[in-house]
This record gives sequence, C-alpha cells and structure tokens, in this order.
Amino acid sequence: MEARKILLNEDEMPRQWYNILADIKMNPPLGPDGKPVTPDALAPVFPMNLIEQEVSSERWIDIPEEVLGILKIWRPSPLVRAFSLEKALGTPAKIYFKNESVSPPGSHKPNTAVPQAYYNKEFGIKRMTTETGAGQWGSALSFACSQFGLECKIFMVRVSFDQKPYRKSMMSTWGGQCVASPSMETKAGRDALAKDPNTPGSLGIAISEAIEAAVTDPSGKTRYSLGSVLNHVMLHQTIIGLEAQKQLAKVGDYPDVVIGCAGGGSNFAGLAFPFVLDKINGKAIEIYPVEPAACPTLTKAPFVYDHGDTARYTPLLPMHSLGHAFVPPPFHAGGLRYHGMAPTVSQLVVEGLIKPKAVTQLDAYAAGILLARTEGIIPAPETTHALACVVEEAKKAKEEGKAKVILFNWSGHGLLDLMAYDKYFAGELSNFVLEDKEIEAAEKVFENFPKPAIMKSR
Amino acid sequence: MEARKILLNEDEMPRQWYNILADIKMNPPLGPDGKPVTPDALAPVFPMNLIEQEVSSERWIDIPEEVLGILKIWRPSPLVRAFSLEKALGTPAKIYFKNESVSPPGSHKPNTAVPQAYYNKEFGIKRMTTETGAGQWGSALSFACSQFGLECKIFMVRVSFDQKPYRKSMMSTWGGQCVASPSMETKAGRDALAKDPNTPGSLGIAISEAIEAAVTDPSGKTRYSLGSVLNHVMLHQTIIGLEAQKQLAKVGDYPDVVIGCAGGGSNFAGLAFPFVLDKINGKAIEIYPVEPAACPTLTKAPFVYDHGDTARYTPLLPMHSLGHAFVPPPFHAGGLRYHGMAPTVSQLVVEGLIKPKAVTQLDAYAAGILLARTEGIIPAPETTHALACVVEEAKKAKEEGKAKVILFNWSGHGLLDLMAYDKYFAGELSNFVLEDKEIEAAEKVFENFPKPAIMKSR
Repeated sequence: MEARKILLNEDEMPRQWYNILADIKMNPPLGPDGKPVTPDALAPVFPMNLIEQEVSSERWIDIPEEVLGILKIWRPSPLVRAFSLEKALGTPAKIYFKNESVSPPGSHKPNTAVPQAYYNKEFGIKRMTTETGAGQWGSALSFACSQFGLECKIFMVRVSFDQKPYRKSMMSTWGGQCVASPSMETKAGRDALAKDPNTPGSLGIAISEAIEAAVTDPSGKTRYSLGSVLNHVMLHQTIIGLEAQKQLAKVGDYPDVVIGCAGGGSNFAGLAFPFVLDKINGKAIEIYPVEPAACPTLTKAPFVYDHGDTARYTPLLPMHSLGHAFVPPPFHAGGLRYHGMAPTVSQLVVEGLIKPKAVTQLDAYAAGILLARTEGIIPAPETTHALACVVEEAKKAKEEGKAKVILFNWSGHGLLDLMAYDKYFAGELSNFVLEDKEIEAAEKVFENFPKPAIMKSR
Repeated sequence: MEARKILLNEDEMPRQWYNILADIKMNPPLGPDGKPVTPDALAPVFPMNLIEQEVSSERWIDIPEEVLGILKIWRPSPLVRAFSLEKALGTPAKIYFKNESVSPPGSHKPNTAVPQAYYNKEFGIKRMTTETGAGQWGSALSFACSQFGLECKIFMVRVSFDQKPYRKSMMSTWGGQCVASPSMETKAGRDALAKDPNTPGSLGIAISEAIEAAVTDPSGKTRYSLGSVLNHVMLHQTIIGLEAQKQLAKVGDYPDVVIGCAGGGSNFAGLAFPFVLDKINGKAIEIYPVEPAACPTLTKAPFVYDHGDTARYTPLLPMHSLGHAFVPPPFHAGGLRYHGMAPTVSQLVVEGLIKPKAVTQLDAYAAGILLARTEGIIPAPETTHALACVVEEAKKAKEEGKAKVILFNWSGHGLLDLMAYDKYFAGELSNFVLEDKEIEAAEKVFENFPKPAIMKSR
C-alpha cells in the first residue's frame, strides 16, 4: 500500500528560509514624506533584528537553532497524498497537500509567530502586541510568546471577540491577554468608542490600538507584531514550501500546479515562493493564489501605493488594494477579509509569475465538506478557498485526461469555526460578489497617492 | 539537538492488535437469567464479526488492510519527548507521551471507530447508532462512518448538546446526524420526556435510545456501537501502546511508569495493555490508570456485577462500579463521568497488575495549563487527569534523584472544551470529592446481583 503521508524527520528540516527579495525588484515602502521609509523610522514599532530581515536581500537566511527547537513541536508538517479525494473525483491527477493544521494553534501562523517572538526576546523585548481578526494569528502569537516567556497582548476585533469566545480562551490558556477592540486602553480605541459606542470594530482600528500600545510603553520594552503582509513574515513561512520540495523529491514527484488561499498572502507565499524560484530558474509550473470573490484584491484591484491599515498609521506599501477604507462583505473566512495583499505577492502578479483566481463562498464550503468527508480533516474557512480551486483543477485534469501533479496548502483546521459549517448546512450562507462600481468607489482613497513603478525583474 | 518527536513511517505500523483476554481470566458477562450471555443474544445489537472479536482469546488479531488505510490519515501518532516539561519541573525523569490528539476528531476514539465501522460495513450493515456524552465519541464515529459510506446517528446527552454546539457541527460536517437525547424518536426517549420534559438527559438514557434505534430498525441493517468499556474496543486501542513500544525501542528507552486517564478505560488500556503483557512476562513497571476524585470507580468502588447503563439494557458486567444509577457531580471531563469501568481494566486492578490513582479537578487543570505552556498542546479535560499524575511522578523522581522514564497518553486536545479553561481562570471551577456515605448509597443498586469471582490469572 502506498503511503498517505510523506514524512521528514526533524533532522531533515530546512536550516534556512528562502528570501524572495533576492530574486525580484520591489518598489520601496514610502513614509509620510513620500520618501522611502528608513529602518530607523520603524524602530519604535519592530525590533531592529526583524527590521533588518524585512529589508534584507540575502537569498538564504539561517533559521536559529532555538526557533527550530520550538518549530519541532509540530514540524516538519506531513505532506499528504490525497488518495481519497482523487478517488472521489475520479481524476487522473495526483493531489498532494501540506498539512499545516497540525500546529497547536491549528494553522500555519506559528511558523512566523515563533521566530518573531524569538527575535523580540533576543532584542531584549519583554512584551508583544498585535491585533487579530478571526483569531488564528492572536492564538499563534500567544502560543509563541508562552514558549519564550514573553507577555502578549492581543486586540481582537469586537465582532469576532463576541462571536468566537473560544479564541480568547485559547489565548488565555497560553497566557496571552486578549481584549475586544476598540478598547478603552488606547487613544485610538477611546476615539473609536466615542464616535460609536456600539461599533463592531475593524482590523484597521485593532492595528492602530496594537501599534499605539507598543510605541507608547514608557519602558521601551514592547514591540508590535504583524502576522502577514510584511516581507519577513513571508520569509518565515517559506519553510512550508522548502519542506514540500524535500518531501516530493522523496517520492519522485514535482508539481505542475501549486495552489494556496490568499488573504494577506502568508500561507500562499509560504508554500509557493520556493516554487517561484524554481519557475524563475526555468521550471514549467502554474502557481495560483486563490482569493474570495467578495474581496478580490489580486483579481480585480489595481497595483497601487496604499496603507496597510484603515487609520493610515503604516507606511504606503506597493500592493494590489481595494482601498484602505474598504470593508469586505461579512463572509466567514475572516483571514481573507483584507483590503490589501503582501507586496511580494503583488509584485509576482505584476510580473506574471503567478496567476490569481477568485472563488465564491458557496463553492468554497462545498469543496471544504468534500475534503472533510474524504481526507478527514475539517478545513478552516480560509483553506476552503484553495480547495475549491483544487477541485476545479482536478476536474480539468480529468476532462483533459492529464495525470497532473497538484500541490496545495491546507493552511488550517476549522475546529474553532464550526458555526460557519452549521450555517452552510442550514442554507444561511450566500455568495457575495462585488460590483465593479463598488470596487471603483472603494479605490478612491488612494487616487492622490504616489504610484508604484510597474517593473519586471527580468 | 535531540529529536522532540520519535516518528514511525506508515509501513512500520503494527499489523496486529494485542488481545489481553489471552492473558487474564475473566468473569463472563451475565444475561437477565443470570447465565453467561451467548453471542447469539447480542446479535441484534452488534454485527457477529465484532461479537466474535469481543469473545476471542487469540492473543494477536490481524488489523485489516482497509482499516490500516484509514488509520494512516493520522497514524502512526508521534511519540513526543516532553523536554520543555522536564525543564520546567527540573526533573531528572525522561518524560514521553503518545500524542493521540492528532486525529481529525482530536482524540484516540477513532482508533476503534474506524475498525467498528469497517466490520459493520463488512457484515452488510448500512447504518450505525451510538450515544455520546461530551461528544468525542460521536465525532469519531461520524468521521469513521464518512470514510466507509455508512449512515451514522448519534444521541447526544441534552445538557452537552446545548453546551457544546460545535460538537454537533463537527458530526454534521462528516455527515452524521446528531439529536439531543432524550428525543421523541424512541420509546425510551419519549418515556423520559413524559416523566420530565426538562430533563438534562443522561448517558444511560442516550444508550437506551441508541440501542432501541438499532434493534427496532425493520430492515435489520442497523447496529449499535459503543466507544469504550467492551473488550473489542480495548483491543482496537492497543495500537497506541504497540506503536509506543516500537518508538521507545528506536531511542533505546523503556518506561518505568505508564500513565493514562481512565473513564470507561479505553485510552488507558490502549497505551497500557501491551506493557501489562511485558509486566506479566517479568518486566518491572508501574502502571497507573488515573480517574477523577469525583468519580472514583477504581479507587473507591467495589468489584461487582453491574449494568453498563442506567436503564439496565446491557448484560451484567464484572467491573468496579459506583452503581448504574450513580450520577457523577458536574465536573468538566465528560469522558470520565462513567459509573463503571472496562471489565478488563477492572480485572487487572483485582490482580494487582495496575494501580489506580485519583486526582482532583483543580490539580488536573493546573497540570493542563502547565503542559499547554510547555509542550504547546492544549489538553482535553480528560487528559489533564493523566497530566496531574505525570507531574506528581516527575516531582517524586526529582526528590528521589531518579532518572525514571515516564510514559503517558495524551488522549485528546481541548479545542472544543475551551470554555472549561475559561471557568478555571475565572475561579469558577471547584473540586468535587465524594463522601464514603454517598458512594455506599449509590452502590445499593447491585446489592442483590450475582457476585463475580475474585480470580488471579497466575
């Protein structure tokens, strides 16, 4: 019987991350003066060792031993051959996935939370702040901080805080302190509450609160942390794709198609970037980031300079954006409800190295249920978007009679999102598809911003 | 750096289960007539191939290839060296655990759900019924039935059904149909509701409903399934201990102490029985089933003949029992709230081969939080009872300056039980310790039952 799971031993783990900045040209982030942001300007927000990583153009960056030691709690993650799905679809395609749901918080997020906590600790930081929407990222940072003895403070968007009380419990169990945002603890929070005491909150406000809580700590021992979008976050996630390459080599396979869902871009980048390097070096391979049709950043929005947050605290980043004031419709994949996209992922779209796709919520859940009943794991709502694309590609391979190799990222499990499945079965979920005029209206906010150069790296 | 996880490849999985009935003498189960139950009498309830397994005295029983194929979704489970816990406790003990939380439903339960579904399917059965308390078992059977294309119907104790809606969602996602018990679908349920329309339900009533729903199906294609207590359930779980033996051999270690929590007995038996065989063959080893002080079946209750359910539908089983009418106090580890204990586990206590321990709820949660913050995984409330014993043993090893090897079973994760952690942090949990007179009162129910022989097998 062929193996379902292709495993690596801990001593086969990659010892370096892959930094895509070595291989593509990027527009720089811009400060309030319209000039490229200097590392010093970011020093109150992030520790300098992470800022150095953010701007590094070294292709390979060593993973510290202490980080590997913690990652080994769940890594290397299994590469799984999806035999049951293949059989259910009757496809000649060989389908593989990296199972990133096996981490204690249940997603790929701790791949960067652990090194971020490590570098903060190394820099003498005692306390980290962050925001969280659906809760995956806040859980991951709480877990990572517990491993390094750091305090962790999480501002969780109120509507999610109220809807998903278990996420707060998870953070508390690891010692993190989670408060609903807007809170009375920051000026940004108090201002938001003064404006609307019943506000459901937003990721934008939560980011503002977390940044403010970090930079106003008089001890200077607090820093802010972001779970996606930034270069160093993508860097840390590349361990996923680097492991997958080793695992596929063990069974003598190589993907024709690589697929990951994309919200801020980190789980997609983690799997895909090492394969992008192969593509740059001449491999024929299709690479698809998959986003919700209700938040079509890569498929419908322009490549612009925009802020990462609603309150415009962050530098201007070169990315595909629906506008920093855009509020996505209330679909369930909270991790994909982001107006922008990682600048590195955006640049790869500009260069034509990757091809974005969009799927609707109902197609995503249908695929999620098919996967739960074949491969056994209940997927996170975010992951179901990748699954819908996988099912489509597998069906296409069947029509074409091609034994394609498809690789995708199972970014997380849905055990803390089961209410969404209930709603699907009850027929209470619907599709949200944005009209072009809604998108045009949202994009007005960056009309007067500088424009990034449209560059090809080769 | 030493490995945290000792892995097996799929082709190193055990190919046979260990059947402890080959090595110990047992009192037979008794029917309503006071005589040993015949296989035929059980035929309306279970498929004959499982009944044969229930009464088999073959020491080794082959695991079917089809069963192995499904178990490989998550098995072999990792054996983990708990370096971080050892460091936190400053103990010279080497601590290992089997991580059974990695299965899709999150516990050891699918180790038996999968073979039970397989044997039912082989026997031509189309639909399985069962009861569930906290929900781990119902989830596991839904998952297993989805793999074999069987229908699955779960009667879930109403109080848990209302408190843990996510468990029902999980079962639905795998295609199982979960209803609150008592329901209007069975006579047993209707009678219970007629007596008290607001009853919170009980495991006893839910068992009665599930058995009735199986035996009254006119097609004859429905059977009942039990997730613990019975011999064949313990048999299927032994894959845990058999894997652990192979994994420990890889690192040249052997346990001085083996620990598992015990409710009905199945996760404990799964890890411990292969080591009991070693002990019978001369190995010096301490083996501890750990139960809640609030439901002290093995530590305080007598070894008697009693029914497995409140409604007295089951045969009389030889076991330690607090009485089939006993209602445990409302502590959170639902999987340990059972009045009886597996007959095989009970017999091992009678023979002095294993030594039961009891721990309080608050000690259990304190240990659970320590483990979450060191080893990273948030344990199920049931598992925390084993953890409290592990911490005690590790501290004792420190006092004695002994480099003992401790092995325990991490039976499940607590991601669907996080509310209990919230209550712990809020100071809302308390200890329940039963008074001797409460136990004596509960035990009145079997005063006039036949008495099992107190036998030693050698």
